[in-house]
Amino acid sequence: MRKSNKKPVEIKPGAYEDAILGFRNHWYPALFSADVRETEVKTLKILGEDVLLKRVDGQVYAVRDECLHRGFKFSTKPECFTKNTITCWFHGFTYNIKNGDLVAIPSDPDSKLIGNRKLHSYPIQETKGMLFIFIGDMSPPPPLLDDVQFGFLDEDNHVAPFHSEEVHSNWRIAADSASEFNHTFIHKEDELVKYWKQPLPFAEKPKSDNPYEGFILHEGPGPKGFTDAFSDVIPVFEFKIECDGETNTLRSAFNPQTDPGSMPLQDVEGILTLPCTLRIGPWGAEPESGITGSYMHYEWYVPIDETHHRYIIAWGKKVSSEGEALKAEHDIRTRWSYLEYEGFNKSDILANEGSQAAYDEPGYAYGEKENLSRIDAYVLTWRRMAANGGET
Amino acid sequence: MRKSNKKPVEIKPGAYEDAILGFRNHWYPALFSADVRETEVKTLKILGEDVLLKRVDGQVYAVRDECLHRGFKFSTKPECFTKNTITCWFHGFTYNIKNGDLVAIPSDPDSKLIGNRKLHSYPIQETKGMLFIFIGDMSPPPPLLDDVQFGFLDEDNHVAPFHSEEVHSNWRIAADSASEFNHTFIHKEDELVKYWKQPLPFAEKPKSDNPYEGFILHEGPGPKGFTDAFSDVIPVFEFKIECDGETNTLRSAFNPQTDPGSMPLQDVEGILTLPCTLRIGPWGAEPESGITGSYMHYEWYVPIDETHHRYIIAWGKKVSSEGEALKAEHDIRTRWSYLEYEGFNKSDILANEGSQAAYDEPGYAYGEKENLSRIDAYVLTWRRMAANGGET
Amino acid sequence: MRKSNKKPVEIKPGAYEDAILGFRNHWYPALFSADVRETEVKTLKILGEDVLLKRVDGQVYAVRDECLHRGFKFSTKPECFTKNTITCWFHGFTYNIKNGDLVAIPSDPDSKLIGNRKLHSYPIQETKGMLFIFIGDMSPPPPLLDDVQFGFLDEDNHVAPFHSEEVHSNWRIAADSASEFNHTFIHKEDELVKYWKQPLPFAEKPKSDNPYEGFILHEGPGPKGFTDAFSDVIPVFEFKIECDGETNTLRSAFNPQTDPGSMPLQDVEGILTLPCTLRIGPWGAEPESGITGSYMHYEWYVPIDETHHRYIIAWGKKVSSEGEALKAEHDIRTRWSYLEYEGFNKSDILANEGSQAAYDEPGYAYGEKENLSRIDAYVLTWRRMAANGGET
Repeated sequence: MRKSNKKPVEIKPGAYEDAILGFRNHWYPALFSADVRETEVKTLKILGEDVLLKRVDGQVYAVRDECLHRGFKFSTKPECFTKNTITCWFHGFTYNIKNGDLVAIPSDPDSKLIGNRKLHSYPIQETKGMLFIFIGDMSPPPPLLDDVQFGFLDEDNHVAPFHSEEVHSNWRIAADSASEFNHTFIHKEDELVKYWKQPLPFAEKPKSDNPYEGFILHEGPGPKGFTDAFSDVIPVFEFKIECDGETNTLRSAFNPQTDPGSMPLQDVEGILTLPCTLRIGPWGAEPESGITGSYMHYEWYVPIDETHHRYIIAWGKKVSSEGEALKAEHDIRTRWSYLEYEGFNKSDILANEGSQAAYDEPGYAYGEKENLSRIDAYVLTWRRMAANGGET
Repeated sequence: MRKSNKKPVEIKPGAYEDAILGFRNHWYPALFSADVRETEVKTLKILGEDVLLKRVDGQVYAVRDECLHRGFKFSTKPECFTKNTITCWFHGFTYNIKNGDLVAIPSDPDSKLIGNRKLHSYPIQETKGMLFIFIGDMSPPPPLLDDVQFGFLDEDNHVAPFHSEEVHSNWRIAADSASEFNHTFIHKEDELVKYWKQPLPFAEKPKSDNPYEGFILHEGPGPKGFTDAFSDVIPVFEFKIECDGETNTLRSAFNPQTDPGSMPLQDVEGILTLPCTLRIGPWGAEPESGITGSYMHYEWYVPIDETHHRYIIAWGKKVSSEGEALKAEHDIRTRWSYLEYEGFNKSDILANEGSQAAYDEPGYAYGEKENLSRIDAYVLTWRRMAANGGET
Repeated sequence: MRKSNKKPVEIKPGAYEDAILGFRNHWYPALFSADVRETEVKTLKILGEDVLLKRVDGQVYAVRDECLHRGFKFSTKPECFTKNTITCWFHGFTYNIKNGDLVAIPSDPDSKLIGNRKLHSYPIQETKGMLFIFIGDMSPPPPLLDDVQFGFLDEDNHVAPFHSEEVHSNWRIAADSASEFNHTFIHKEDELVKYWKQPLPFAEKPKSDNPYEGFILHEGPGPKGFTDAFSDVIPVFEFKIECDGETNTLRSAFNPQTDPGSMPLQDVEGILTLPCTLRIGPWGAEPESGITGSYMHYEWYVPIDETHHRYIIAWGKKVSSEGEALKAEHDIRTRWSYLEYEGFNKSDILANEGSQAAYDEPGYAYGEKENLSRIDAYVLTWRRMAANGGET
């Protein structure tokens, strides 16, 4: 981990531009634990692949959702004759759900295929109420710790997963937007901001002449990416627009100079790490109550296909007892979740969907039409690190 | 006709793989006779071509559904000023429906185009309550007898056409599936099987070490393809699945050893012939009544476009009088048709639709991803014969 | 302006065939004035481009509907902090709506981008209740007068815009059809014809052996295209169809020889000019009342994308006072508009949509499958002039 101060000079050509289906050889959140009950079969598309998941004796396993024989999609009509197998409904080819091994063919019990063919089997780790899946070819896979947010797996971190939604934009548009605080412009009128009486700036300016200063690089071990923080930028709470004699001044709803009831924001930092993983916080301070914010917001932009990603949101809080965990869970479920999703994250979804057409225009590489400003040093830094697997 | 015992060695490269729109120069069922009343105009898409059909003085004619002049699709607003013509609604170009000849242009009555241009005209034969259309360039076309099921055209064969449905799969997936009995796995729980108390095996094993024995080749004259029969395979009525210590035994609902009320299946044979034509039977025995089955099931997988085929079903029975024909018609309409479609053929549709994505995956040739087993000798034999026009 | 008598010999190869998105560097009608109220923001797609329009102090301005920064489509959530700007909702990039200049970036107020980048700004002219937009790169653009119908802009011409509809055909199919009277075949049974008791021929034959005689070329200055008139062709009111012994005679509902109540048509002429602009008339005579028709029908086939155009219709009449203008407006709104659209123009839409598939068939160039007749000299003349920018 070190402070950054250099302009990116060597981006691996095309790597970010080519990552339309995401970066492979990483862990991604697939589903919430509660979505897959014992013996239940579920499916999802992730990084362009069709995956079937099943819970057996408490543990979830995942295989490719397509029979090796003649391509029938198991999930069209899932059939399980033992709890640890999946059988293709079409001709009875039967696989060990735990490792994908082909274990039986009713019409050819002695086939040489048995024991020699296997479905792709996806490593799954279940933790904090979430199912993580490893998409890639490394065996064994790298530790999950490298692909989740800092602190996420800590034993005293209580996590409440609360939203998962398919968004009509390529995952990179969402990740690019997450890399920079500057898109707070979209949150100007959001209900969450009003509830908090939050002095959220609607823009941020780099503090120094070098826009590549002011964020902290994480080059591993552990999550790879960077931190940017409101304390490292000059927040903009007021801005005068002038055009041909017409003028107007934009003002934040809550300006720290003029609204004493509001609370400090400078502690809030965003950490964007590979593969598509954001932690932002702390949040959740109580306006006018003196209660310090202690919630972390987690989110992911999981690639589905070229034009969609799955937007997954969870909240977390350090707790020291089961009672505190229950209280945090209650707080998140009743007070924060609706307010944050309806009154804040929906703006992010709209921003990403409204940019999809431009990034998807035929004849252009990803980002080719952009006109970036100094503050987009964030975006370029993210792309450089992402394309280089976290190296700078 | 001869017994097969050889592995296919010389498949014309790519021919089956390329036949995404079917094999041309064959007769296909288009519509049922009752679908086209006197003077009525109907359209359909078949092997990728748009065809317009019209009945004139009892006989049905078919031409390409697109005006030669400026491409207007006649069926958008069909206009007929004499019973034996079709006029383009746009500029009045008028064609002889019987042979496609351009016969009149209101704005240019002496045009050289008249008498020198013609719409493609499709040979039509109507028999057994069905309309067959010849798609191809051979003139005259080969006999219809070569492209329908054995016995279908026999004078004493009463045919009841009863179902036609667009299915979302390429026609080859359906034909491949029809080539092998082994997909009976999908019919394990079907209502038709329960009604029959039918000892339908859910899998079949080749009787000999050579899986290319056991079916009869038909290399013409007449329909080209092959017969496979339940009497030529070892039926599987019971199968033990074992995986990592978990076991289960699949048992047919009706096993000839244990269920004396059931009836023999060994007489049932399937004959798959070009272009996409199946006869299976005899069916229809009365459980516990001693009545021998005497119905033949006919079906076709008519290519529509790259990703759809029309699944057409008819039943037939040899009769010796009009009274018997009426009785057969009544039986089929009231007792068999619903039961067979809802309780049996719908499973075939689901199987074919559930395999479409795998066979249509970009970057793969048809069948490239398969892992075939010994019993798939059926499928390979069908593909070899189909690709070679019925020759082995 | 001169009489034509020559067959086209030098069509710029491919130019009309390539103009799938229309001809650039022309004025097109975009919206009706009433569609854009003061401060209102509207969008449309035209010639494949996404355009945002806004009315400021009475005048309408238009810019490209995509932020230069990171591609957000302004119209997803339009934001205007001053009346003469449009601000990107995503990061606050703000543009002068009048010329597209980037005028402010809240997070980078001193950015070099400001003053050096601009959105594409589209010239707009508003006249006769309609908004015309210039699509192209010429600066300054040529006069609007060149791209509207003869007489359209005359001070004493009262125009009532009354219909705008997206049609599912490429614009060229509509323009080709507008170039020739011969498609009157589609209007044989239209309600408007019946109301008028109009002796509308259902076909026209060239008067001379040279089908390239009989229309007047307009090669500029002013609108470029050609006039064809009913007085220059032999109208067909009766036509005998004969085919294999079957015969029928088509007769117009109103034949001037046999129906004395009808009125003359020979004054009606159609003028098709670039870019996609038709004037046809005069219309609107009162059957059996002696009132001479004095209305002009205007229409345009504005390219939207490869497979759609916007069909825009207006009517006009020379008036000498405000009272006459009001009377004309009332006439058009109550008596003509519904009758013409429902009872006449809807047939044109059906004709164009019914031809789209043939002109869009993969593997063929535009028009490659046609079989043109002598009367299609109209179509070829239009294509030649259009491809050559109005030159012959």
